[in-house]
Amino acid sequence: MNSYVIYLAPAFGIIGLLVMAWKSSWVSKQDAGEANMRELAGHIADGAMAFLKAEWRVLSIFVVITAALLAYSGTVHEVNGRPIHSSWVIAIAFIFGAVFSATAGYIGMKVATKANVRTTQAARSSLKKALEVSFTGGSVMGIGVASLAVLGLGGLFIVFLNFFADLGATVVQTSIEVLTGFSLGAESIALFSRVGGGIYTKAADVGADLVGKVEAGIPEDDVRNPATIADNVGDNVGDVAGMGADLFGSYVATILATMVLGEEIRVSDHFGGLSPILLPMVICGLGLIFSIVATLFVRIKDEKSSVQNALNMGNWASIILTVIASYFVVMWLLPDGSITLRNATFTKMNVFFAIVVGTIVGAIMSFSTEYYTSMGKKPVDSIVQQSLTGHATNIIGGLAVGMKSTVIPILTLAGGIMASYYFAGLYGVAIASAGMMSTTAMQLAIDAFGPIADNAGGIAEMSQLPAEVRLRTDRLDAVGNTTAATGKGFAIASAALTSLALFAAFVGVSMPDNQHIDIYKAPVLAGLFIGGMIPFIFSALCIQAVGRAAMDMVQEVRRQFREIPGIMEYKAQPEYEKCVAISTKASIREMLLPGAIALITPVLIGFIFGPEVLGGTLAGVTVSGVLMGMFQSNAGGAWDNAKKSFESGVEIQGETYFKKSEPHKASVTGDTVGDPFKDTSGPSMNILIKLMSIVSLIIAPYLYGIGH
Amino acid sequence: MNSYVIYLAPAFGIIGLLVMAWKSSWVSKQDAGEANMRELAGHIADGAMAFLKAEWRVLSIFVVITAALLAYSGTVHEVNGRPIHSSWVIAIAFIFGAVFSATAGYIGMKVATKANVRTTQAARSSLKKALEVSFTGGSVMGIGVASLAVLGLGGLFIVFLNFFADLGATVVQTSIEVLTGFSLGAESIALFSRVGGGIYTKAADVGADLVGKVEAGIPEDDVRNPATIADNVGDNVGDVAGMGADLFGSYVATILATMVLGEEIRVSDHFGGLSPILLPMVICGLGLIFSIVATLFVRIKDEKSSVQNALNMGNWASIILTVIASYFVVMWLLPDGSITLRNATFTKMNVFFAIVVGTIVGAIMSFSTEYYTSMGKKPVDSIVQQSLTGHATNIIGGLAVGMKSTVIPILTLAGGIMASYYFAGLYGVAIASAGMMSTTAMQLAIDAFGPIADNAGGIAEMSQLPAEVRLRTDRLDAVGNTTAATGKGFAIASAALTSLALFAAFVGVSMPDNQHIDIYKAPVLAGLFIGGMIPFIFSALCIQAVGRAAMDMVQEVRRQFREIPGIMEYKAQPEYEKCVAISTKASIREMLLPGAIALITPVLIGFIFGPEVLGGTLAGVTVSGVLMGMFQSNAGGAWDNAKKSFESGVEIQGETYFKKSEPHKASVTGDTVGDPFKDTSGPSMNILIKLMSIVSLIIAPYLYGIGH
Repeated sequence: MNSYVIYLAPAFGIIGLLVMAWKSSWVSKQDAGEANMRELAGHIADGAMAFLKAEWRVLSIFVVITAALLAYSGTVHEVNGRPIHSSWVIAIAFIFGAVFSATAGYIGMKVATKANVRTTQAARSSLKKALEVSFTGGSVMGIGVASLAVLGLGGLFIVFLNFFADLGATVVQTSIEVLTGFSLGAESIALFSRVGGGIYTKAADVGADLVGKVEAGIPEDDVRNPATIADNVGDNVGDVAGMGADLFGSYVATILATMVLGEEIRVSDHFGGLSPILLPMVICGLGLIFSIVATLFVRIKDEKSSVQNALNMGNWASIILTVIASYFVVMWLLPDGSITLRNATFTKMNVFFAIVVGTIVGAIMSFSTEYYTSMGKKPVDSIVQQSLTGHATNIIGGLAVGMKSTVIPILTLAGGIMASYYFAGLYGVAIASAGMMSTTAMQLAIDAFGPIADNAGGIAEMSQLPAEVRLRTDRLDAVGNTTAATGKGFAIASAALTSLALFAAFVGVSMPDNQHIDIYKAPVLAGLFIGGMIPFIFSALCIQAVGRAAMDMVQEVRRQFREIPGIMEYKAQPEYEKCVAISTKASIREMLLPGAIALITPVLIGFIFGPEVLGGTLAGVTVSGVLMGMFQSNAGGAWDNAKKSFESGVEIQGETYFKKSEPHKASVTGDTVGDPFKDTSGPSMNILIKLMSIVSLIIAPYLYGIGH
Repeated sequence: MNSYVIYLAPAFGIIGLLVMAWKSSWVSKQDAGEANMRELAGHIADGAMAFLKAEWRVLSIFVVITAALLAYSGTVHEVNGRPIHSSWVIAIAFIFGAVFSATAGYIGMKVATKANVRTTQAARSSLKKALEVSFTGGSVMGIGVASLAVLGLGGLFIVFLNFFADLGATVVQTSIEVLTGFSLGAESIALFSRVGGGIYTKAADVGADLVGKVEAGIPEDDVRNPATIADNVGDNVGDVAGMGADLFGSYVATILATMVLGEEIRVSDHFGGLSPILLPMVICGLGLIFSIVATLFVRIKDEKSSVQNALNMGNWASIILTVIASYFVVMWLLPDGSITLRNATFTKMNVFFAIVVGTIVGAIMSFSTEYYTSMGKKPVDSIVQQSLTGHATNIIGGLAVGMKSTVIPILTLAGGIMASYYFAGLYGVAIASAGMMSTTAMQLAIDAFGPIADNAGGIAEMSQLPAEVRLRTDRLDAVGNTTAATGKGFAIASAALTSLALFAAFVGVSMPDNQHIDIYKAPVLAGLFIGGMIPFIFSALCIQAVGRAAMDMVQEVRRQFREIPGIMEYKAQPEYEKCVAISTKASIREMLLPGAIALITPVLIGFIFGPEVLGGTLAGVTVSGVLMGMFQSNAGGAWDNAKKSFESGVEIQGETYFKKSEPHKASVTGDTVGDPFKDTSGPSMNILIKLMSIVSLIIAPYLYGIGH
């Protein structure tokens, strides 16, 4: 065995972390502006840390309990005479996953709360400089997340292979089974971060808008609004920390699912038969390196350059470089001749084709999302037109756009599943997903740059800087809105493919002798129904939580305006920290029930009704979750941009309407409805489906043992 | 063979038709009031007939083409050496199904447009009399639909058994295969009627409200509003004719699915082995008779009596009598000893238990729907509370209620599927559905009474009758709103069970040797995704169609107010017929694409990818359709009643709000968004899932022949 290959992935991870540290210190060295700017940025950073600490306090209880349960389960080595390849070490893997996930969120938050004010300051000189600071901030997050993932998975895999070395034939199987704990830790923290962060940010946003903009008539991000700091904190805890944990979880789950399937493949290669297991790690490691290289392409010349083009350059450079490199890696790692997994037989060339399929699926998903949510395109324009006849028709228009936006992605996804399966069986589906996710570092850099620019604009407004500064940050922010939408399209596509791979892994482990999920059986179909329902109740809980927390926020802001004299005249400072505390408390309280549903449902159904019914449930969650995720994210994105269209004036039936017109008011209603859709419930769907699949995979050996 | 049993169902059907004719003539004999009332009623009746005729003209083309295709397909008796038990006669069955369905709609419409004005006149004397007239009108519809169904199915079955008598062993199989055409005809006309009628009624409703109520400030149903006649026509074409065709289709599909599965059962009984086939027909025939009997219970004493209680009495009487009778019928028809279908073995007692399960599922579904959509209950109240902070929070509240409302029904449904399957295998699931649907005559009578009372109120308003008349019709109408919601819950539950039975029938025919729909296979899972997407695009098309047609209507109404002087002063009559024409044209144009998607998708997927992938698609459509149906219908119902709550004043945070307050305006937005949800896209879902299953069943023998 050429054992050096196994060190490749962690090595890439370490290189990534070094680059991240270097970029992070570069950001820190930038000018943070004057005292009042630094003070505001300090409030935001403090609020964000306060949330993280409060969240960690609650989650640490969850982590300890779950780790204990996992450790106990790891001591069961046999059920009904059937061997179970697990170990108490899975608890350690779980804790690592949770801590790494929290670290990923922490890194992003830390750099984002530094980069925001520095971007504001940079925007005082030029757009070029502002993009440089904000994108570097985003890339610290992206590179950090990807590095932690390959380092964590690759490093632990080496550790476990050595730890279980005396198990003999089952060493690899046991190592990977235990490694699943890492993914469970990552994904469960991701769910809580996404849901908690999503509730936080939208409660603050809606609350700040309803009283500040609508009732008091002061602009967005006005320093007199008591909820404005909470609103800006929200961008960091929801859009940065939440998203970082989310993509960390996705990335890990995708690699892991491919490893689990790869472990089933018996090949004779030059790497001790490990090549199908190592392939996804190496490809993702390369994707990390090429993402770092491609960040060099993200730069503009002057004020007139297109920011979108610069980001696109970086994105495509990373994808193309990684695909080309994948070809050589596949050729080098995998053996010649035919490879067999379950019923499928394929060659290494076919594996490469599956990777290409994944990349194409990801690209089409992004384009489709962009089409349905971009300003100036037909869908958003139809919502603008329907705002003429009032709030109701605006809402109807947005709901219809959201529902329609599922068609192209679903057909693409279905085609992608069929094609990657055709090329390389279930391994093809898994590796397609890994290929799609390999440039996560770049994706996330582009995603995270948006909220940094948004925050920079907020600080500019609150510090009452000249209008040109806000204009520059707004240009960055507008691009950020589009990239946020395409990022969500990408995330849901990869979640669907990853879930399918996890699903396949689950079937292999829980029903090795009779691999079927036959929905023609009534109980399995019943499971499908229950699974399909879960994204509905999950979304309802998230949406309601935002509504409740926003109401609390509204009442607090009203109270401060009433009871603290002089706020309106800039004579007294509002009690920002009270609003921060409301959002923090509400989000942590409200994230528990949805999280519990996601974690407990598979355990209950699996142990009561057996693996096949659980398989039906997982299929139901996946299909319904993907659809609801796209519907909600895209409807929300479209409503948001329909509202933004009014800023530069829109023509409806021959007349031009601007902000504050009646149609604009209708569009604000749509945007407010869309807020929890696109930032709380919608993006949680992809974590929900992956988390339920991972929980199922964790309990799979025991379900096999019980033998329903 | 005691061949008289086979004549039971058609005999019940003929009795039903006689009772219907008698009740219908009773309605005709009632006083229709003064000349102006009769004139208005005449406008409504003419508009309704104009729609029906226009619709029939388009649908007749569809029927002829489809019949030709079916006739051709019936001439194929062998594919790849595999025999196909069909015949060109299936085209005749299809035409019968289509014509019977259209007739069911026609009967309902005819009697409803007579009963409406007579109810108005009756309401001038007493509530008791008004209920009598309106409920009798509804029961003509209910009894007519059920009678046509059992007569059509039972009669054609006898005809086909004789026609194919010389086929020997396959006579029953061929007869039932051909009878599937009857269900296809019924269900496809149902889809077009529901979608077309739903678009019609909501385009007129939204258009009339937006200009009349909001812009011109005249009350609902004001004679000066050019769209008011179209609005009242809409109640008839959507809520009466559309619903009649819908339930006719459901009823037929349910019975047929049970017959198809029953045909597979080999028993030696006293009825030539036909008892499992005849059982659903006989039970539904009995349900019809007991529904007629139970109409006697629907009466009130005086003005203070509860209309809801009277309807509940009738409903429960019919259900309880039918369940008791079912016990004796099951004991009499089915043989002693064990009965076997595919892998399940059961006794006749178990079949009876499955029927009881179906009844319980139906009851829980109705209660749950009522809870989520009734005034004064927590869900509707939460929407009322959230109207305080504006349009957006009202919408968010309604969406959350709709999503939440799926939980209890889905758990009930899943439990019902498991329990009925446990008792009597797939036959149990099918007969549970038949048991639930057996009292369709009563259900539909209760359902159809609502729009009649609604129309009666409209005529009272337009004829400027004393307020007490409108008060009485409003009391009936309010009860009608609740029964409409519960009726929809019932319809979606029966559709889910029926689809499962049809699904099972499809598997049996298309894959007799290898009965699996294994979603663990990638292409089948891809089918599941595509199927899950269809209810989303179908809903989007319906919602957008309503939006577009309503915009046309708004512009026409504005034009009339502008160009016809004297409308506002009652000096000139608006051009009602132009608004009727707009709704008619729009609804017929817009119903085609959604209809085509439902019909063509299964054919394409089946022939390209084979029966197993099609099975995955059907499962996806069913799960997603049931969820979207419940979500949309219940959200719409809840919004509607949240708005109605303001009529008698609601207390929000210590203050009381009435109509025209800001929170009331927000609730009107919710109601308008809910309109297409609850009356167009939502209730179409159950037809969509059944129609796609029936199309699949029709092509199943050919798919088997091709042998993918």
